[in-house]
Amino acid sequence: MCRMETLTKNKMKWLQSLSKKRERDEQRLFVAEGAKIVQDLLPSFECVALVGTSEFFRRNGAEIADGIELYEVSDSELERISSLTTPHAVLGVFRKPDVRLAAENLRSQLTLALDTVQDPGNLGTIIRVADWFGIENILCSPDTADAFNPKTVQATMGALSRVRVHYVDLPALLASVEGVPVYGTFLEGDDIYASPLSRHGIVVMGNEGNGISPAVERLVSQKLHIPNYPKGRNTSESLNVAVATSIVCSEFRRRIF
Amino acid sequence: MCRMETLTKNKMKWLQSLSKKRERDEQRLFVAEGAKIVQDLLPSFECVALVGTSEFFRRNGAEIADGIELYEVSDSELERISSLTTPHAVLGVFRKPDVRLAAENLRSQLTLALDTVQDPGNLGTIIRVADWFGIENILCSPDTADAFNPKTVQATMGALSRVRVHYVDLPALLASVEGVPVYGTFLEGDDIYASPLSRHGIVVMGNEGNGISPAVERLVSQKLHIPNYPKGRNTSESLNVAVATSIVCSEFRRRIF
Repeated sequence: MCRMETLTKNKMKWLQSLSKKRERDEQRLFVAEGAKIVQDLLPSFECVALVGTSEFFRRNGAEIADGIELYEVSDSELERISSLTTPHAVLGVFRKPDVRLAAENLRSQLTLALDTVQDPGNLGTIIRVADWFGIENILCSPDTADAFNPKTVQATMGALSRVRVHYVDLPALLASVEGVPVYGTFLEGDDIYASPLSRHGIVVMGNEGNGISPAVERLVSQKLHIPNYPKGRNTSESLNVAVATSIVCSEFRRRIF
Repeated sequence: MCRMETLTKNKMKWLQSLSKKRERDEQRLFVAEGAKIVQDLLPSFECVALVGTSEFFRRNGAEIADGIELYEVSDSELERISSLTTPHAVLGVFRKPDVRLAAENLRSQLTLALDTVQDPGNLGTIIRVADWFGIENILCSPDTADAFNPKTVQATMGALSRVRVHYVDLPALLASVEGVPVYGTFLEGDDIYASPLSRHGIVVMGNEGNGISPAVERLVSQKLHIPNYPKGRNTSESLNVAVATSIVCSEFRRRIF
């Protein structure tokens, strides 16, 4: 294990700067908080720095590879750096992965597409759901939340190491993949339980308040709906987008078990 | 519409006190924030006070019934009272409903039971899911999050007016309802897609970190599991509890459509 370095004011500022998307994008870095998530990400992402309590390093020091900057901090220092309301014993700075989207995967796999999903927690939960159901790629419109937002990283519970998130011009991409079925959920869609679903294709989920945008809707080849119970009963107007995503993914996977 | 009253320091303290569960329980009151939720709750719960911006009262004043204390506040005053990070245009104080659990409903309906679900946001999402799938009653262990926590109320999106939440001694209650199937999700449970499911019964969901407690597990008559894809693949260890609840509810309802 390498020796500890001193957490200077400048280093502290650097860590805090990574709560901003612009800084994460420029520096190609992101932050994960909590021993469990940091350990889950260590084998998959290049770790640049670990900032932890003495307790954390005492327990995990032996497993930490060389070449990582290490900073031992007090609970109150950690609290100042953390962007979470309840800071954890460690914060890791990782290098953002280079992700490339292979067009053939869109033909041979089930893929999710998010059209302006804005809540970082929802995005994190969706990445975790994708991991559970073996979905390797998520396409996001540029105004979807950042997959490397600390709250998103937190909600993924480590799934970021297995799911690749791509920010793309969604209408342009969907228009370019001819012959691939594109599903989307709409209030006026067909009952998903009774609809034919293909093994592969792209499932679009829309914005929390406004659903799928008109430009993307035009490219949806099959509109689906999760019926409430009893059908037509006066209930909540919609489901949370992460909840709707999980029900849709479950239904696609159930069919081919 | 009644006339505006002055928001005194004491009233402000009173509003802030309702962010504490103990105070909500003693005063039998709860707070909802945001024009949409407040309007959804107004027909179902007795409203005690509305604290809003001039903009809110200008738009909605005509619809507000007599006998409600009204306070017009600035954005910065609202921010000080609000327990949310992004305060909304209005905050309503409502009387908590008296809920009674009819034992025969546990025999004739599908019911959810939450064994120490701790996150207020998860609980709110679960209440919204229950509403969507026509589940009228949710049984909660006493250490489950408070359904009237402001974050929970926020996440329910108005579903609280249709779903009744009961805090009960879960093991004692489950032991008392002989003949009612009790389902629970476990890593070692049977594939839910391939398991027989009854129309009625109780579905137990466990704590975010530890799942279902041993005392409740003993009373589960059928253990279920949501398989990941492909089966046995190394993915996230679990699904978020609100996500798992939604997949289980969807599967119960799908069967009887």
